[in-house]
Amino acid sequence: MTENQLTYQFYVPEPTLRRLPWYLAYAQLILKEGELHVSSTQIAKNIAVDASLVAKDLSYVQITGRTRVGYDVKELVHVLESFLGFTVSHKAFLFGVGSLGGSLMHDNGLKQFGLEIVAGFDVKYELSGTSINRIPIHHFDRFTELQKQTGVNIGILTVPVEKAQSVSEIMIEGGIQAIWNFTPYRIRVPEKVIVQNTSIYAHLAVMFNRLNAIEECENCKKKITRKS
Amino acid sequence: MTENQLTYQFYVPEPTLRRLPWYLAYAQLILKEGELHVSSTQIAKNIAVDASLVAKDLSYVQITGRTRVGYDVKELVHVLESFLGFTVSHKAFLFGVGSLGGSLMHDNGLKQFGLEIVAGFDVKYELSGTSINRIPIHHFDRFTELQKQTGVNIGILTVPVEKAQSVSEIMIEGGIQAIWNFTPYRIRVPEKVIVQNTSIYAHLAVMFNRLNAIEECENCKKKITRKS
Repeated sequence: MTENQLTYQFYVPEPTLRRLPWYLAYAQLILKEGELHVSSTQIAKNIAVDASLVAKDLSYVQITGRTRVGYDVKELVHVLESFLGFTVSHKAFLFGVGSLGGSLMHDNGLKQFGLEIVAGFDVKYELSGTSINRIPIHHFDRFTELQKQTGVNIGILTVPVEKAQSVSEIMIEGGIQAIWNFTPYRIRVPEKVIVQNTSIYAHLAVMFNRLNAIEECENCKKKITRKS
Repeated sequence: MTENQLTYQFYVPEPTLRRLPWYLAYAQLILKEGELHVSSTQIAKNIAVDASLVAKDLSYVQITGRTRVGYDVKELVHVLESFLGFTVSHKAFLFGVGSLGGSLMHDNGLKQFGLEIVAGFDVKYELSGTSINRIPIHHFDRFTELQKQTGVNIGILTVPVEKAQSVSEIMIEGGIQAIWNFTPYRIRVPEKVIVQNTSIYAHLAVMFNRLNAIEECENCKKKITRKS
């Protein structure tokens, strides 16, 4: 990797990184349909993003489109998959084998996107020695020992809210460098540790509020209509 | 509900709606620990958000803090849970009982946050009549009929990317008003339909990129050290 590429990788803004998988999904779709080339305008139109934004986002990736032809679809898929880290297998430990944690262990989709959960940890002794989807579950006490053996540096946090901070501290002390936090709790970590918050329940709140607004609005209209 | 409150509900910005569950999680935590009052400064400090932002976000919610005392923790929990829609049970249909869809059906956490998946739909005939976590699975053809019977207006989209657009169109035609889209595909919908995108794999891409940057950076440093 050249220094130039390195600089590129360092400065990819998060909104770009979140949009790139949309372009990938679209490119994979049209690749299946047999399309050979795609322009940023076509991508933009189909996924309802501004065309200049698509072009700007794709400028971070090492791919060049040809004038009036566009990007080679196969190349675009390949380059995006690789750029996004989906082609390399990243091993992860999961902390807290409750309902959500167990669900994530069930999800084979993660593997296709480059994440392999290699073990689950929980404080419940009755879970130790069992497995979900062939992934072994160990007692939380064994984490440090198993981290040393395997070097796993990604941790998925699915413990109850009240344990989120204390467990993340033990994770970091034990060698975890990136935490995928599924709890709604905002953990505080040293600067060098990466935290990705994915609170699916927060998304639920947004949806409920919008739906509620529509329903209230319809009730409004009914009331107004009744009055007049 | 007064007209004033209604106006409030209509204009809650999405970033605020996404942060409110963090405040709720923190308030629930300190409620368990027996705290009676909490200030916006204390919330801000503990979850690493600016204090003025916390106060501004909470101004959307119908709660008033007392000077030098702060918010009543119990009231804060109650008001936030209710405001976010977590206290009402919203019924939802799930479309696409694959790995991710099945995982979501396994997750009992959703129910605690107000979402009850009442049925799953899939095109695979061998899945029809089976169930996951006591939630029945029907053939996709039965959706319109069951929607009419139940009035369910929330749909969870977990189909493969290439089916995302066509399935969402059938969902909307059949009466779905809010789509929780877990696919990385950007579906196009009529303006009145609510879409909440939760592409957990896109979050994974952000995490991989940041981790990669750190690793590359460490390799850099090693090279630089070796050279000097």
